[in-house]
Amino acid sequence: MSSPVTLADLAKMDNADFIATVGGVYENSPWVAESVLNSAPFDSITSLHKAMKGAVDSAPEEKKLALINAHPDLAGKAALAGELTAESKEEQGKAGLDTLTQSELEHFTKMNDEYKAKFGFVFILAVRNATKHTILSSFEARLKNTRMKEFEECVTQIHKIAWMRLLTVLEPADTGFLTCHVLDTAGGKPADKMKIVLKRVSGGGKIGVIGEFVTNDDGRLTGGPALKGNKEFTVGVYEWTFNVGDYFAKEGSSLAGTPFLSNVPLVFGIDNPEDHYHVPLLCSPYGYSTYRGS
Amino acid sequence: MSSPVTLADLAKMDNADFIATVGGVYENSPWVAESVLNSAPFDSITSLHKAMKGAVDSAPEEKKLALINAHPDLAGKAALAGELTAESKEEQGKAGLDTLTQSELEHFTKMNDEYKAKFGFVFILAVRNATKHTILSSFEARLKNTRMKEFEECVTQIHKIAWMRLLTVLEPADTGFLTCHVLDTAGGKPADKMKIVLKRVSGGGKIGVIGEFVTNDDGRLTGGPALKGNKEFTVGVYEWTFNVGDYFAKEGSSLAGTPFLSNVPLVFGIDNPEDHYHVPLLCSPYGYSTYRGS
Amino acid sequence: MSSPVTLADLAKMDNADFIATVGGVYENSPWVAESVLNSAPFDSITSLHKAMKGAVDSAPEEKKLALINAHPDLAGKAALAGELTAESKEEQGKAGLDTLTQSELEHFTKMNDEYKAKFGFVFILAVRNATKHTILSSFEARLKNTRMKEFEECVTQIHKIAWMRLLTVLEPADTGFLTCHVLDTAGGKPADKMKIVLKRVSGGGKIGVIGEFVTNDDGRLTGGPALKGNKEFTVGVYEWTFNVGDYFAKEGSSLAGTPFLSNVPLVFGIDNPEDHYHVPLLCSPYGYSTYRGS
Amino acid sequence: MSSPVTLADLAKMDNADFIATVGGVYENSPWVAESVLNSAPFDSITSLHKAMKGAVDSAPEEKKLALINAHPDLAGKAALAGELTAESKEEQGKAGLDTLTQSELEHFTKMNDEYKAKFGFVFILAVRNATKHTILSSFEARLKNTRMKEFEECVTQIHKIAWMRLLTVLEPADTGFLTCHVLDTAGGKPADKMKIVLKRVSGGGKIGVIGEFVTNDDGRLTGGPALKGNKEFTVGVYEWTFNVGDYFAKEGSSLAGTPFLSNVPLVFGIDNPEDHYHVPLLCSPYGYSTYRGS
Repeated sequence: MSSPVTLADLAKMDNADFIATVGGVYENSPWVAESVLNSAPFDSITSLHKAMKGAVDSAPEEKKLALINAHPDLAGKAALAGELTAESKEEQGKAGLDTLTQSELEHFTKMNDEYKAKFGFVFILAVRNATKHTILSSFEARLKNTRMKEFEECVTQIHKIAWMRLLTVLEPADTGFLTCHVLDTAGGKPADKMKIVLKRVSGGGKIGVIGEFVTNDDGRLTGGPALKGNKEFTVGVYEWTFNVGDYFAKEGSSLAGTPFLSNVPLVFGIDNPEDHYHVPLLCSPYGYSTYRGS
Repeated sequence: MSSPVTLADLAKMDNADFIATVGGVYENSPWVAESVLNSAPFDSITSLHKAMKGAVDSAPEEKKLALINAHPDLAGKAALAGELTAESKEEQGKAGLDTLTQSELEHFTKMNDEYKAKFGFVFILAVRNATKHTILSSFEARLKNTRMKEFEECVTQIHKIAWMRLLTVLEPADTGFLTCHVLDTAGGKPADKMKIVLKRVSGGGKIGVIGEFVTNDDGRLTGGPALKGNKEFTVGVYEWTFNVGDYFAKEGSSLAGTPFLSNVPLVFGIDNPEDHYHVPLLCSPYGYSTYRGS
Repeated sequence: MSSPVTLADLAKMDNADFIATVGGVYENSPWVAESVLNSAPFDSITSLHKAMKGAVDSAPEEKKLALINAHPDLAGKAALAGELTAESKEEQGKAGLDTLTQSELEHFTKMNDEYKAKFGFVFILAVRNATKHTILSSFEARLKNTRMKEFEECVTQIHKIAWMRLLTVLEPADTGFLTCHVLDTAGGKPADKMKIVLKRVSGGGKIGVIGEFVTNDDGRLTGGPALKGNKEFTVGVYEWTFNVGDYFAKEGSSLAGTPFLSNVPLVFGIDNPEDHYHVPLLCSPYGYSTYRGS
Repeated sequence: MSSPVTLADLAKMDNADFIATVGGVYENSPWVAESVLNSAPFDSITSLHKAMKGAVDSAPEEKKLALINAHPDLAGKAALAGELTAESKEEQGKAGLDTLTQSELEHFTKMNDEYKAKFGFVFILAVRNATKHTILSSFEARLKNTRMKEFEECVTQIHKIAWMRLLTVLEPADTGFLTCHVLDTAGGKPADKMKIVLKRVSGGGKIGVIGEFVTNDDGRLTGGPALKGNKEFTVGVYEWTFNVGDYFAKEGSSLAGTPFLSNVPLVFGIDNPEDHYHVPLLCSPYGYSTYRGS
């Protein structure tokens, strides 16, 4: 894969180059990219995606149907015949759909056929990060939907596919960052002096430990965001490990010899590297919560 | 270490054997074991420990002070001179206190001296599962306490040490078990068909994956407890991994390409293998909680 | 309103009486009731509603469209002209739509017109428990949807209307009940001896305090469910008040003079009186959670 | 009660006036106020209280024992004989201890006697906001403690009494404020356009509705803190009501006819009017959490 295009470069392109660059993010449907040309330039992938999504959402139903049907079956004939677009080939490969066993292939074919017979269009699922198991669960669940609901769902999935494709084509804006906050709900106060380790589990950049922190008096990371900007804050899966056991030992909580909570892991995915992700921990000696905050 | 004594065996022992078996769990203080002789036999380590704890708690303060001072300094002169009881030697070794650097040793010596000068007794911490860092944080925090509070804290720590020692000497009653429950707080219903993996991270028995489950319609594990009885349900650290991503995909939630939550790990410690541990998950697509339930 | 028909009575009815009884729950569309006749008898409103919903969901789109358009505008011409069905009249009245000011009426008319112009069918919202404000927020939000999404949403709302109408026509099965559980996440154990008061805020039956409880050693209500069966456990809004302050005082937590948490209210709605509602509290001195459990 | 003294006024006082003003906050023990004279002036009640607390905590045990015993029995002989300090009289009266029935009086007397016989000092509990029931539960729980633990607990309670007395004598610094934040954990984003009402349930200032808010795009209150400064942000009990039902209706969640959550109340106490209280809501359609944040 060639190195990503910057938003600055994209802004300078003429229409033909713009289409050549991002025209493929909606499968076989360069009209989507064309329809946002007069909103260019875009200062973020987020705003470009929003514009493209808007163009699709406000298109008439026939055009959406054509967009849906511009996609190949998952693990279908096009794949077997080597006729996928480069994007679809890579995505299906990442989900393991290019190495199905014979019986798995038959199962997929049967599901695809049932689905098309019931709804009149192909099944679409953003598969880049999905396993075969996820894809099959999703297939079975969605076969029970009404046609309209499925139509909507396919369009939703197409927007996700486009988003993930944009992220491989363009370099994100430098705006994203990751913050943390730890609160002690037994003591009703920020958890200070708690040790936190941050690992990248998968995604762009170094895998493994990428930061070690100690919370300040407000329960936040000294020195600002844990990750910041498009070099550090990349799409992927991350893991905090919070040393909750040591914290409550310091607070004088009467923990067990083998404490219920000691090193608490939080594994979370970053999908939009231009955004702010706040991933806090609320903890007491015997329970905790986390959530995507703001 | 010799193999653990069963509670049935303990029940048949005469007084001298009983004391020989459990007299050492309160350091150099066989009087504690003696004072529970007429409450024998015990049907669980839990009830034996409760009786011994009761004997200590109702003893006069001079006797508690003697009990505290029957303990060696952590990483202190007794350790250097090789004069620790077998139990203390093992515990200090597990916490890495037998391999301190020279400067760490000096730091411990200084803390021990300050502590004894301030309070008039030795610093006690149940160290079997603690790291050097935990011990030092605890030391610093507790130096700020009042004498009375520290006296109480030392007795509390001694009870924990006794508990952990009982668990190495005796085989637990066969009553403990582990259960799970998954609720979907976005949908307001049990999370069905969620895949869950259970691993033992450390402790007695096989390390690694020890169970794979799928939740039933009530969000619980089909087939009853995940672990049951003193062969399976041992002191140690465990980890659930909940496949939250697949569940919400199946529910039709519009997850991101890289979902915020996919495989959610919960790491928890089992301290009392005779007890029921209920460790549930409450989840929505962007947040979750856990706690020790019942 | 006449008194509700029992499920036993419904089971004995001939087809004409069955249709006369439940044929109106889908507005002006007795075909829905007709299509479940051969699945009768039903042992619960839940199963009857499920069958009727299934008949609608599997109907062709034209038939669903006709069903949608069988509904009157909210606060629309039919209402002004006094041409609503008895059911619609009562529902719109409960939401205050029969006493709109002139400017509110104009606002509704404008929204209705815009909506119909955009989607080609009428706006439907289950309004029995909604305020004017809710209805307007919903109107504005839904005007942004695609036609297909709105079509699906209208059908969803129609199912809710049918559910609420069934509940006024039939007496629920005697299967519903309400339970509670209180866990102390600071102590890692059930919260025992906590005082709880249960009030009915609105709905069928006595309004005000309808139960006082104290939790047992497992943190549950002594004596089983708080409410049980179709005489006690009625559709409506309820409120637990948990005396969390006294509990933590008893536990020796060092609460403030004015504790952060003292009497914790949880207000929750019961929509299906045939179901089990488990409404627990997870609390620590400075935080709590609740959720619909199972 | 005379109007509170400002911190500015306190700063200008000579030693005798300072003692006259705050010497009584530690019952019959002006030495506590004397010992902080050379740390004056104080810019907040918080820092004055911290200094006084430090003086007590570092005093020798005999002096702490004398301080404990400088307090009257709760509902004891001094109360009956009219010999209480003005402060104690007011506090005991607010807790209803001046209107005990004969049998309640006997119960208190018996508990007081048992307690003094066991520990050698009087039972102390900060009672201003406690009910008779709380006081009795606390009495029973604490009778089971060891003498040392009770000694510590009495000193802790005395610090709370002092805090509450300082708040009646002095006007707080103008630094406190109340903030809010609402997160939608089903959608993984701030909950925007949510209506929130704030009431004062008890405490200083207007009782009833004192603010109405709508969350902004970040889920926070437009216009900054909900309450700010010592005129608005007073010691007392407050209640948020969050219109969660309307919010999720707007988000297109398929709520029940009688939604599980509609108007969610959070009742919380403000103990330190000089502090920042952050009281957020994390909500999904079927569950929510709150906690004291920062």
